[in-house]
Amino acid sequence: MLKKLMNSYAKRLALPPGTLVHLGEPSLSDTLLSLIVYDKDTCAKYDATTLEDALGKMLPDAVSWLNITGLQDTALLERLGSRFAIHPLTLEDILNTGQRPKTEVFDGHLFSVLKMIRYDETTRSLDIEQVSFILGKDYVITFQERPGDVMDALRDRIAQGKGSIRRRGADYLLYSIIDLIIDHYFISMESIGDDIEELEAQVLDEPSPALAKELHRIKRELLFLRKAIWPMREQIALLLREEHPLIATDTMPYLRDLQDHTVQVIDTVETFRDMLGGLLDVYLSSISNRMNDVMRILTIIATIFIPLTFLAGIYGMNFDVMPELHHPLGYPAVLGVCAVTAVAMIAFFKRKGWL
Amino acid sequence: MLKKLMNSYAKRLALPPGTLVHLGEPSLSDTLLSLIVYDKDTCAKYDATTLEDALGKMLPDAVSWLNITGLQDTALLERLGSRFAIHPLTLEDILNTGQRPKTEVFDGHLFSVLKMIRYDETTRSLDIEQVSFILGKDYVITFQERPGDVMDALRDRIAQGKGSIRRRGADYLLYSIIDLIIDHYFISMESIGDDIEELEAQVLDEPSPALAKELHRIKRELLFLRKAIWPMREQIALLLREEHPLIATDTMPYLRDLQDHTVQVIDTVETFRDMLGGLLDVYLSSISNRMNDVMRILTIIATIFIPLTFLAGIYGMNFDVMPELHHPLGYPAVLGVCAVTAVAMIAFFKRKGWL
Amino acid sequence: MLKKLMNSYAKRLALPPGTLVHLGEPSLSDTLLSLIVYDKDTCAKYDATTLEDALGKMLPDAVSWLNITGLQDTALLERLGSRFAIHPLTLEDILNTGQRPKTEVFDGHLFSVLKMIRYDETTRSLDIEQVSFILGKDYVITFQERPGDVMDALRDRIAQGKGSIRRRGADYLLYSIIDLIIDHYFISMESIGDDIEELEAQVLDEPSPALAKELHRIKRELLFLRKAIWPMREQIALLLREEHPLIATDTMPYLRDLQDHTVQVIDTVETFRDMLGGLLDVYLSSISNRMNDVMRILTIIATIFIPLTFLAGIYGMNFDVMPELHHPLGYPAVLGVCAVTAVAMIAFFKRKGWL
Amino acid sequence: MLKKLMNSYAKRLALPPGTLVHLGEPSLSDTLLSLIVYDKDTCAKYDATTLEDALGKMLPDAVSWLNITGLQDTALLERLGSRFAIHPLTLEDILNTGQRPKTEVFDGHLFSVLKMIRYDETTRSLDIEQVSFILGKDYVITFQERPGDVMDALRDRIAQGKGSIRRRGADYLLYSIIDLIIDHYFISMESIGDDIEELEAQVLDEPSPALAKELHRIKRELLFLRKAIWPMREQIALLLREEHPLIATDTMPYLRDLQDHTVQVIDTVETFRDMLGGLLDVYLSSISNRMNDVMRILTIIATIFIPLTFLAGIYGMNFDVMPELHHPLGYPAVLGVCAVTAVAMIAFFKRKGWL
Amino acid sequence: MLKKLMNSYAKRLALPPGTLVHLGEPSLSDTLLSLIVYDKDTCAKYDATTLEDALGKMLPDAVSWLNITGLQDTALLERLGSRFAIHPLTLEDILNTGQRPKTEVFDGHLFSVLKMIRYDETTRSLDIEQVSFILGKDYVITFQERPGDVMDALRDRIAQGKGSIRRRGADYLLYSIIDLIIDHYFISMESIGDDIEELEAQVLDEPSPALAKELHRIKRELLFLRKAIWPMREQIALLLREEHPLIATDTMPYLRDLQDHTVQVIDTVETFRDMLGGLLDVYLSSISNRMNDVMRILTIIATIFIPLTFLAGIYGMNFDVMPELHHPLGYPAVLGVCAVTAVAMIAFFKRKGWL
Repeated sequence: MLKKLMNSYAKRLALPPGTLVHLGEPSLSDTLLSLIVYDKDTCAKYDATTLEDALGKMLPDAVSWLNITGLQDTALLERLGSRFAIHPLTLEDILNTGQRPKTEVFDGHLFSVLKMIRYDETTRSLDIEQVSFILGKDYVITFQERPGDVMDALRDRIAQGKGSIRRRGADYLLYSIIDLIIDHYFISMESIGDDIEELEAQVLDEPSPALAKELHRIKRELLFLRKAIWPMREQIALLLREEHPLIATDTMPYLRDLQDHTVQVIDTVETFRDMLGGLLDVYLSSISNRMNDVMRILTIIATIFIPLTFLAGIYGMNFDVMPELHHPLGYPAVLGVCAVTAVAMIAFFKRKGWL
Repeated sequence: MLKKLMNSYAKRLALPPGTLVHLGEPSLSDTLLSLIVYDKDTCAKYDATTLEDALGKMLPDAVSWLNITGLQDTALLERLGSRFAIHPLTLEDILNTGQRPKTEVFDGHLFSVLKMIRYDETTRSLDIEQVSFILGKDYVITFQERPGDVMDALRDRIAQGKGSIRRRGADYLLYSIIDLIIDHYFISMESIGDDIEELEAQVLDEPSPALAKELHRIKRELLFLRKAIWPMREQIALLLREEHPLIATDTMPYLRDLQDHTVQVIDTVETFRDMLGGLLDVYLSSISNRMNDVMRILTIIATIFIPLTFLAGIYGMNFDVMPELHHPLGYPAVLGVCAVTAVAMIAFFKRKGWL
Repeated sequence: MLKKLMNSYAKRLALPPGTLVHLGEPSLSDTLLSLIVYDKDTCAKYDATTLEDALGKMLPDAVSWLNITGLQDTALLERLGSRFAIHPLTLEDILNTGQRPKTEVFDGHLFSVLKMIRYDETTRSLDIEQVSFILGKDYVITFQERPGDVMDALRDRIAQGKGSIRRRGADYLLYSIIDLIIDHYFISMESIGDDIEELEAQVLDEPSPALAKELHRIKRELLFLRKAIWPMREQIALLLREEHPLIATDTMPYLRDLQDHTVQVIDTVETFRDMLGGLLDVYLSSISNRMNDVMRILTIIATIFIPLTFLAGIYGMNFDVMPELHHPLGYPAVLGVCAVTAVAMIAFFKRKGWL
Repeated sequence: MLKKLMNSYAKRLALPPGTLVHLGEPSLSDTLLSLIVYDKDTCAKYDATTLEDALGKMLPDAVSWLNITGLQDTALLERLGSRFAIHPLTLEDILNTGQRPKTEVFDGHLFSVLKMIRYDETTRSLDIEQVSFILGKDYVITFQERPGDVMDALRDRIAQGKGSIRRRGADYLLYSIIDLIIDHYFISMESIGDDIEELEAQVLDEPSPALAKELHRIKRELLFLRKAIWPMREQIALLLREEHPLIATDTMPYLRDLQDHTVQVIDTVETFRDMLGGLLDVYLSSISNRMNDVMRILTIIATIFIPLTFLAGIYGMNFDVMPELHHPLGYPAVLGVCAVTAVAMIAFFKRKGWL
Repeated sequence: MLKKLMNSYAKRLALPPGTLVHLGEPSLSDTLLSLIVYDKDTCAKYDATTLEDALGKMLPDAVSWLNITGLQDTALLERLGSRFAIHPLTLEDILNTGQRPKTEVFDGHLFSVLKMIRYDETTRSLDIEQVSFILGKDYVITFQERPGDVMDALRDRIAQGKGSIRRRGADYLLYSIIDLIIDHYFISMESIGDDIEELEAQVLDEPSPALAKELHRIKRELLFLRKAIWPMREQIALLLREEHPLIATDTMPYLRDLQDHTVQVIDTVETFRDMLGGLLDVYLSSISNRMNDVMRILTIIATIFIPLTFLAGIYGMNFDVMPELHHPLGYPAVLGVCAVTAVAMIAFFKRKGWL
């Protein structure tokens, strides 16, 4: 689980900085390339076999979106790096899938790392995958760890020319991708929100020990979500502040919208954390109350019957001289004393509010 | 409940940014338009049937307040957007009722989103509704989710020309609306404050398990209130800092007053949260004390009678040779030992402070 | 209690901003005016009957201190406002006694709101009263809610010409008043500090359930004190930064001194809060320890006597064939087993550290 | 104890600001003056009887260190104040020994207040004493509350001309004094660190109720230490930023070194606080564990013997018709059932992990 | 353990600032010098016997890396200091191994202090060692406390000319060393992460009292790690901001990379701390649940058998007149009542959810 947070750095230790080693979990599939080239009028989609093949299909006056899935093929990355003048440390960051979300501004391009989050309903856990972006004048290159992503809706939109995306540049494409990723954060938040509501209902109605573990599970998911999303706020703020030539002025309102959404997710994560903290308090106090209930029953039984049992024990003794034993009303008298004592005690407990 | 915090984003996923989809809870009523047009001397109120109808009634040298209730009619919003040059993302924000309070400055107008809060005394929960504002040179457009709002007092004031509102511009109208909304925050705070005082009295006097749930309920309401009101501070601060041409200099003191009120609400929310934290401590320690009381009673009973019962058990044994049984003073001696033991134990407990 | 924090806003709702309504608790006494006019050589004190009367007595080259006690007479405030060109929102702030401490700078004057705090030894609670100040070129106007204040010492100083106050301007008078108010904060802190010390001694020596409520009480007083004093730091910092023409350069060191004192009070409040948190921990752990003591006694009694009672029960059975019963040493043997068992158990508990 | 934090302000109340009243604990000894005058070649030490006597011995081209011990003699302070043009509020700060550490920059001199801290090994508590400094062009005046300080090592260094102190100015003397005081903070921290280590060993090995009080004691000492040292960071930072003419450029690295040490002490205080918080958790959970142990023993005893005692009770009944009683194997059968039940229960508890 | 945090300051007290005293734990080995001199084409490695020997081997146009292991030989440091114009306070900082990580910029060189951290798998504790750096135009001097470090991989890289290190200057060498040190932070984090995962599995599956101590141990390690790494963020940020002439522009991206890694470690430490906090909650609530389980069993046994034992006690009394005893169905009737009562109670507990 914690592997989501860190990579095995041991394999990097003896190597110079900028040496490309894939530090994430090894993926089973091959590295796949897919390319979408579009402008106002046309749109073509290729599943390229080689990088050179894909680069050959990029057109000068169109927007190209090159998506690379799988990060094992470090040779391919090196070729890509030299073709687009990407700094070796940036390539290293792409391969290091434990990267903190960040944005770096270079002369000819802009580099950004995000976390793509999907909530897996079957395992009820977050599936966190790192996505890196390189935005150039007329291209966006995206790097994913594993096949399968959240961007098919966007691909359809480009193919069908819905919205303004075909009339706009690469910066708007980048925005659209990040917007989709953040929309999926909201969907993950909704799923976690549903889990919290269910948990809240259970904690308030019938608290059971298993809920503590469920609380812990959700708290941990929120912790990971928070770690993935907190740095994004400052990163987008940086883009808004720096006014990079690659980002057109009319794309800025869209970035501000991204910023708003990010802050909204962060706000909700914090609210959820506060709610879980509150639920833990309710859970613990309801555990205490159950304990109290159990203790009360125990105390009442003991308090009523232990003295009576002593009384019965007294008249079970075998002394020769015990005058009460021979009195004809002795037995009913003892039974009466028992009954009166029991009733008195019950009344006492009622008054104490214990019954 | 958490739906107040988030919308179902799933329906937005496949759509381009700026596509208008209403993301809040569906409202049962139709979209309603009402228009108030006033200047120093005249004031007219219309319940317009169509947007075009309403736009036709807006006068050049008067202040127009167009209120739109219900957000289902996205076509109407699009027409409004193109008429007043509203950015598509702003229209999207109006429809997305899970929006974080914010203020955005555009060239010809100013856009603001707030939460209108009313405390529903019957369900004892906050009723949070999103209100959006567009302030232009001589108009204010307000968007509400549901019929019914807190602004009737203001409508009367305009109609009757009370105060200076008729002599001032659209910026003062916007201020007056926000001021009313924040005044209702205070009223909600008062209701929550009353609930806390009642809870405090109960926790101090007779703590019962139900109080933990009540504590949790109020804590959650404060959490929602806080989430709704925290961002307002920075938003109003932004307006004060930026000195927008749409806001007259003599309206600035009023905005500063709004700012003060917002900070006051935030302060009170924080104080309430601290108080609830303190109440939880008192509650938990009083639960512990009750537990202690119960344990003490149990221990005293057990400690007194269990040894005595053993003594009675001894003399209930059927050994042939038990000389004590045949001594004439055996029985009273045993009773005496019992009495002395009991008294000694009670004295011991008294000294320990357990009785 | 919470009324100290908020006012009933309901009555303000239907009114335009700037309408004067007194929002605090209604005072029983009338609105009283008192005026002190002094310069280097002379000093006169008047209990004026009307505002106009008082205004007539203010002299051009002397410092006038007009004190208004009681805020019911809104008409008087309106007349005062128009005489000294006070903004309607400022008048509203003076009447709204749930105001957060703040300072506002206007063209001809400076407006400040503070909380005057006295610790009432009989009810052992803080008595918080709002005081507002208007500082003009040669006058200070103070507004109080109720008769009785902490400023008699200052009035004597002016009358007797002690210190440099008579040789200085209105800004120094304002400083002197605020200084006195903050000195009273220290005195309140001292009283609360005494309460905490007493509580600490009790918690460490003989923790009793009542202490949890006492802890809660002090915590709440500190919460109110903190809410009253936190905003003052930034307000005085603002004055120091802005260098207002009404405040002479040689008064600045005095303001810096005020700032120091405020920070000192805030520091002490925070330290007290930390100490109370620590005391709660000690209290709760001593409650746990008592519980443990009680449980230990219970366990020892039960562990020793329950098995022995069972043994006695065995030989109390009425089976025909129980050879031990007929052995002459049976009875002493059983008693011996009981004694040995009891001693062994006690030794076991001693070793466990339970006895 | 809390007297360390505050002074009795009551006696100041009726006095004008700047009136000199000593607010600390009254000292028993007289006010003592001692003067060291040194330059590169000579060094003289005087125990002056009067201020005038001391002032007469200060030489124009040498560095003079005037140390005043005891703050009762307010007349002496006033004379000193008028001689060195010290602001009345500064003199008041020197006398107010509950002062927060601060630095103030004046035209001809620089004023600084610190806390001198020594850990008293016998009472195991911090001994906090206020020291004030006035740095002029060629003199340093220090004010202490009580005789005895940490500066003898420095006096020896000056007398013997060790290090560069004799070749440097008054600013370096001030630095040397503060450096010594901060070194003593480290020594106090070491003593507290030893206490924490000892406490940690005890909490982990054999938690006893007394440890909660010890935890509380150390926490409180840290609270006081923190309150004394936190403000120093900003004060030294201020000196570094402002570049005062009285402080030579080559003294700046030394101030930066002071700053480092202060931050290191603050860091260590925070780490200690975190450690104490962790220890409290361990302590509380070990208390819980002990409780659990006790409960387990109780439960096992009760669960084994209470049912068996009931069985014995059954055959102790005196019914005429109880066939089992007359069966020759009845008694051994009951004993067998008892044994089997007991063994079965012990096995059950073993499986539950309770034994 | 805490000795890692502080040194014995007592020995420094009587000495002037800048006097060189080694404040760390005394090392057993001698002070060792090793020198690597390299340029694009050549690389030589010397284990120098004396400082002068080493200095003689440094070449003007090559990069020299002088590593000094062991800090006892203060005379050597003084000679080094005068040769490279190192400020006495810097030398003092090198010797004071309780130093907080920091970077200081001087005219001809740059001084930096870090903590080198290795996780010792056998003792399962962090091994923290201070490393100081002096970066000059063409040299880097490193100071270590003990023999053995993490830099052998780097030495091999230089010797074999892997990566670009041989083609770059001393600034890149410094970066490479710090990069290696931070990579080891990640490895320590991984080990701690593994410990946390193991602990989490145990806390969720079979909570035992020993886990509280393990939790405490990891928390403490994180505390030390955090203390060592927090200041590094600001120190690297400082280097990035100040643009020192000793650091080439093309080394800046590498420093930014260092900054990213530091922030990533800090993020992970914070996440680990949050996780441990969550684990403590789970642990405590599972302890409570076990307690509840034990109490429930106890209550059930007591509640079922104590009343039945009383019933048996009744018919064990020896009264002359007890008609039930003589009824032939008396005994089976009592047995029946016992059975019915027991069954009823079990049903009651089932309904309560206690069984």
